[in-house]
Amino acid sequence: MKNSIGQMFAITSFGESHGRCVGITIDGCPAGLALTESDVQKQVDRRRPGKISGTTARAEGDEVEIISGIFNGRTTGAPLTMVVWNQDMDSGAYQKIRMTPRPGHADYTALVKSGGFNDFRGGGRFSGRITVGFVMAGAVARKVLDFIGIEILAHTVEIAGIQAERKTLKELKKNVEVSPLKCADPVAALEMMRAIETAQSEGDSVGGVIEGLAFNVPVGLGEPIFDTLEGELAKAIFAIPAVKGVEFGAGFAAARKRGSENNDAFAIKKGKIVTLTDNAGGILGGISDGMPIVLRAAVKPPPSISRRQKTIDLQKLANADLEIRGRHDACIVPRAVPIVESMMAVTLCDFAIRARIIPEVLK
Amino acid sequence: MKNSIGQMFAITSFGESHGRCVGITIDGCPAGLALTESDVQKQVDRRRPGKISGTTARAEGDEVEIISGIFNGRTTGAPLTMVVWNQDMDSGAYQKIRMTPRPGHADYTALVKSGGFNDFRGGGRFSGRITVGFVMAGAVARKVLDFIGIEILAHTVEIAGIQAERKTLKELKKNVEVSPLKCADPVAALEMMRAIETAQSEGDSVGGVIEGLAFNVPVGLGEPIFDTLEGELAKAIFAIPAVKGVEFGAGFAAARKRGSENNDAFAIKKGKIVTLTDNAGGILGGISDGMPIVLRAAVKPPPSISRRQKTIDLQKLANADLEIRGRHDACIVPRAVPIVESMMAVTLCDFAIRARIIPEVLK
Amino acid sequence: MKNSIGQMFAITSFGESHGRCVGITIDGCPAGLALTESDVQKQVDRRRPGKISGTTARAEGDEVEIISGIFNGRTTGAPLTMVVWNQDMDSGAYQKIRMTPRPGHADYTALVKSGGFNDFRGGGRFSGRITVGFVMAGAVARKVLDFIGIEILAHTVEIAGIQAERKTLKELKKNVEVSPLKCADPVAALEMMRAIETAQSEGDSVGGVIEGLAFNVPVGLGEPIFDTLEGELAKAIFAIPAVKGVEFGAGFAAARKRGSENNDAFAIKKGKIVTLTDNAGGILGGISDGMPIVLRAAVKPPPSISRRQKTIDLQKLANADLEIRGRHDACIVPRAVPIVESMMAVTLCDFAIRARIIPEVLK
Amino acid sequence: MKNSIGQMFAITSFGESHGRCVGITIDGCPAGLALTESDVQKQVDRRRPGKISGTTARAEGDEVEIISGIFNGRTTGAPLTMVVWNQDMDSGAYQKIRMTPRPGHADYTALVKSGGFNDFRGGGRFSGRITVGFVMAGAVARKVLDFIGIEILAHTVEIAGIQAERKTLKELKKNVEVSPLKCADPVAALEMMRAIETAQSEGDSVGGVIEGLAFNVPVGLGEPIFDTLEGELAKAIFAIPAVKGVEFGAGFAAARKRGSENNDAFAIKKGKIVTLTDNAGGILGGISDGMPIVLRAAVKPPPSISRRQKTIDLQKLANADLEIRGRHDACIVPRAVPIVESMMAVTLCDFAIRARIIPEVLK
Repeated sequence: MKNSIGQMFAITSFGESHGRCVGITIDGCPAGLALTESDVQKQVDRRRPGKISGTTARAEGDEVEIISGIFNGRTTGAPLTMVVWNQDMDSGAYQKIRMTPRPGHADYTALVKSGGFNDFRGGGRFSGRITVGFVMAGAVARKVLDFIGIEILAHTVEIAGIQAERKTLKELKKNVEVSPLKCADPVAALEMMRAIETAQSEGDSVGGVIEGLAFNVPVGLGEPIFDTLEGELAKAIFAIPAVKGVEFGAGFAAARKRGSENNDAFAIKKGKIVTLTDNAGGILGGISDGMPIVLRAAVKPPPSISRRQKTIDLQKLANADLEIRGRHDACIVPRAVPIVESMMAVTLCDFAIRARIIPEVLK
Repeated sequence: MKNSIGQMFAITSFGESHGRCVGITIDGCPAGLALTESDVQKQVDRRRPGKISGTTARAEGDEVEIISGIFNGRTTGAPLTMVVWNQDMDSGAYQKIRMTPRPGHADYTALVKSGGFNDFRGGGRFSGRITVGFVMAGAVARKVLDFIGIEILAHTVEIAGIQAERKTLKELKKNVEVSPLKCADPVAALEMMRAIETAQSEGDSVGGVIEGLAFNVPVGLGEPIFDTLEGELAKAIFAIPAVKGVEFGAGFAAARKRGSENNDAFAIKKGKIVTLTDNAGGILGGISDGMPIVLRAAVKPPPSISRRQKTIDLQKLANADLEIRGRHDACIVPRAVPIVESMMAVTLCDFAIRARIIPEVLK
Repeated sequence: MKNSIGQMFAITSFGESHGRCVGITIDGCPAGLALTESDVQKQVDRRRPGKISGTTARAEGDEVEIISGIFNGRTTGAPLTMVVWNQDMDSGAYQKIRMTPRPGHADYTALVKSGGFNDFRGGGRFSGRITVGFVMAGAVARKVLDFIGIEILAHTVEIAGIQAERKTLKELKKNVEVSPLKCADPVAALEMMRAIETAQSEGDSVGGVIEGLAFNVPVGLGEPIFDTLEGELAKAIFAIPAVKGVEFGAGFAAARKRGSENNDAFAIKKGKIVTLTDNAGGILGGISDGMPIVLRAAVKPPPSISRRQKTIDLQKLANADLEIRGRHDACIVPRAVPIVESMMAVTLCDFAIRARIIPEVLK
Repeated sequence: MKNSIGQMFAITSFGESHGRCVGITIDGCPAGLALTESDVQKQVDRRRPGKISGTTARAEGDEVEIISGIFNGRTTGAPLTMVVWNQDMDSGAYQKIRMTPRPGHADYTALVKSGGFNDFRGGGRFSGRITVGFVMAGAVARKVLDFIGIEILAHTVEIAGIQAERKTLKELKKNVEVSPLKCADPVAALEMMRAIETAQSEGDSVGGVIEGLAFNVPVGLGEPIFDTLEGELAKAIFAIPAVKGVEFGAGFAAARKRGSENNDAFAIKKGKIVTLTDNAGGILGGISDGMPIVLRAAVKPPPSISRRQKTIDLQKLANADLEIRGRHDACIVPRAVPIVESMMAVTLCDFAIRARIIPEVLK
């Protein structure tokens, strides 16, 4: 298992869904960054389920605690460890289904990988809850990126096959934050909401697509040939449970275009070098080209559904049926939006340090 | 720049398109593997353009040379370095367009990143030619994977929007290798070929999609939470120039499915644990589940087209026109197929060693 | 700053001397290891000052808390995080001497490196207290090494220039643990004790040498050419504050020997391959040779002395005098003994996993 | 096996003593550095045996070839690969003693580690010849360090127990380069030379101590708590075959000092912060303090001696005698001097980049 990512701005994740806590340690955060627990709390709160049906009822009340790396309200350059303590939870349900792995979950692979010693309660290390740590790290990374003006914004572009209309950046900024689905298109959002409710009422779930954007990225981030901007961003995004695809710019659609359509022509605009389109998603040769970075992540429908499913009994090595009780998120796309932002922020922060754009000390 | 990838089976890439050579060093290859230059040559030859119009005319005649790490026909556990020497090439054309970066290429970002010191001839480090090194590494990785029975196969599933029909594994194995487009569906392949020829004749290019498959993967490969099987495979695949999207199993289509459709039910078949579908692409929780690993990579149309394009003059900081002369691949999808296989092999080999499935010495 | 070490058994250190806590996260610990907080506590307690004058009076009462990675009394393969919470301490003294860096301490370098944002209270990240985390990690590593029979033992071989007599392994095991100086030679220990007391009474301090031993190490640990057994052990040992030299086997004395004396002749004894001497310290070519691993670490006298010292005033940029008040350890050698053991254990554990000698799951 | 070292300025070593070549790849060298093969050749030539008896007669005639990473006489930021091709050599002698491992050599450990597949000819990967690659990397690192004024100098301070007198920096610079023993004290050097000749004539060998110095190191290099300046320098130095001890500043002698003697008092001199002594070897808390960095490496006597030695026959598993024929270096200390410089340069270069002191592009 490898629970660290990043070369110069490295994060280490720890904790379990029903264990004592979930946490994150950042190693390599520049010294001098003003940071309070409430800066981080704000981002963690954005991960909470909004007032939509179809998202989990668990009132997490997660309270961020910084236990190292801060002194007099600023980072010191030392490892920054942040935790959220778990409240006592009933894990009995998981014990019961221990030997009948839930389809679409990591139950089976986690059990084999750990020789049966994994903490299976609430999904353990494989629970979406682990991403609270990602968001805490992202909150810090975003504050670091502020110093060089990089801004990150993610939003829901599709749920249950319903696509949001493309909006201006201004609309994006205005609409996303107030939307319970983190969707900039209120009309589509309504339809998405209905689709979620329908799925929920049928004991089922739906997926969607999140778009992540980064603005004001200087030319030169990315360390090819192997640590490309696409490659590292994708690796970071795939750490989010439920993501099954990542594309940049035109992405899979580029495969259907002609070169003459897909190539982004260079031009001078207001004295600056730009491209007239952004099919490349702001990345050429694995390096940022100064245009907005655009990625999209495919989020599968949550595997926890209340419908009866086919599985196996690992003890009897026989086919079995499974019914998962309790309330489940019928759609996790909106909750994953700040997590996508967080993993983008962490990755870009690492690249900016590697390119020596961010110094050891911020003043 | 970071030109190494892998933790325990690490490869380091070096060389330039028009420099002395392209090469690769493998560090961590188990000792005792029987390996000859012709084993590697065979894979490198598969990367050559087939007898299709629309692929580059350059007769590379690349001859693999192993310059370290082999003794008496076997690997020693020492770093294995392989090179292909470049033949003298005319680089004059590149000098001329140095200051008018080609749209869709890394010309501009490479120049900025290197402060103008990059070897721009033939694309330098950003040329597809660098992937000869990937294929050499892949050839070795595949031989290592043979020891634990893992088999890797990639094929063209789409070119210019034309999709190949799904075929059985048997057909795949039979058809792909003889197809100049590395496509298992001969009917679709004909149509793809015509689309390539049309694009070529119009001074344009087309993209496509490659599917990579891995069979007989044991349960337990993958090191989440950050070094997931998806994440590391994606990172490796994004190192292939022109790839703009990577998805696993149902991928982006999963985002449109209901949980009840997308979940792969577990079952016992012939005493073995399987899933009845493979929407997960053989990966649950970032760990292999024993089913075939399935990924798809979106390959953009090659940016080198003979049509006149808009760009800028970097010296005058003014808009400019650009015409790229010479023959260019109108479609690189077939040539990228063995590269996808190679990067999959290298990644799985690394994971298998990390899981202690492959020992230090192969006997 | 880099606060992680190890490739496959990686530890990440966090916390400050007067902050909330000191802690450690182990990533890569095999699953299935029986582990309780008291297993770890036992080792942490060994780090406490013994009943000797000359060691710090601070009653730390450190209580180990495992906050992730344990389930049902066993490791799960997930990151194992352990913390010791700090009690409230008076940090006023440090504020006063903030601008007059203590000679021999990291005050000055830490301040420059962090741009003045470092947590200087009690030495912050540079305090010996951070090594509580090392010992917690070492406690786990030692339990893992038990599975393959590797045993680790360190002891004091010199304090204040007084050298202990060489003892048999049996005596070592018997004497070291009961000795307040962790010295196997009770006669020399008495003299050392007096030297410490004298130094203490004169407001001064003394250094010494620790020998670290590892028994039953299989042939083949070490990953040269760069990750040699010597190199990685040395790197780990130099992370212990106050260590200024590391040598293996005959070490610096080997530089004065003839080849004919220094070479360890191979021989067969009781059917096993051994060397008749161990000038190599159990390491040939950076790889363990099956003989005991022997290293020695030079520990400087603690820089905190009560005598008046010359320093500078960083604000006035002028020479200044400094008197450090309070009780200080006049000798930290005995307390460093379990820390040397811990860093050896962590390093050997990492190498054993890299050599695939320790599996993913311990049963 | 791990043949790469360094985070941001990473070198990968490959090649064997009697294989095709020895080589090195540097990944992370800033772009824009003027570099020719003769720059590197000059350093490699310094590694050649001087006109002293007691060093190997093999006329290596090593010619450096840069095969990637250079364009128009400057580095490009791409991986820089340099090789020296081996001339055909008679490896028959090694075949004969294959099964009777030479005491003090890596023959036995290399054989076990590789399952018997190692290239044993001339010591293969464990030959001192591999360090030609270190010197090539060091030549580049030194040119990079020139940009920030860091100067590196190593010299012989002891051979066969004979110690050189301490000299001024001026004398060091004048004397070392012209001394066949790389010793600044010509009187001691004469005596050392005689000791080498005596050992040689008696079929024996002698060791010694090398001191490595770095001047003009800015405050702030080093990344504790684990990547300390001492730890990383030691790791790099221990990669040099035959090194068995590394110490910094007063080193092992510090263990015998009182704190009041060992602490380096701070002072202002000519407006600069200095310490009045340098017992710390320029390193406090694992971070450079602005004073010269001072390390010493203990070099064991070369194990290849012509005297009859005791060993074992690995096939018969019985005791055996061994006589090694041919000429051997009776002392490798002088030849190791530029290698110590090289590994120091590589390490400091890496740290300077990590501290963002060296930019991506040198202009």
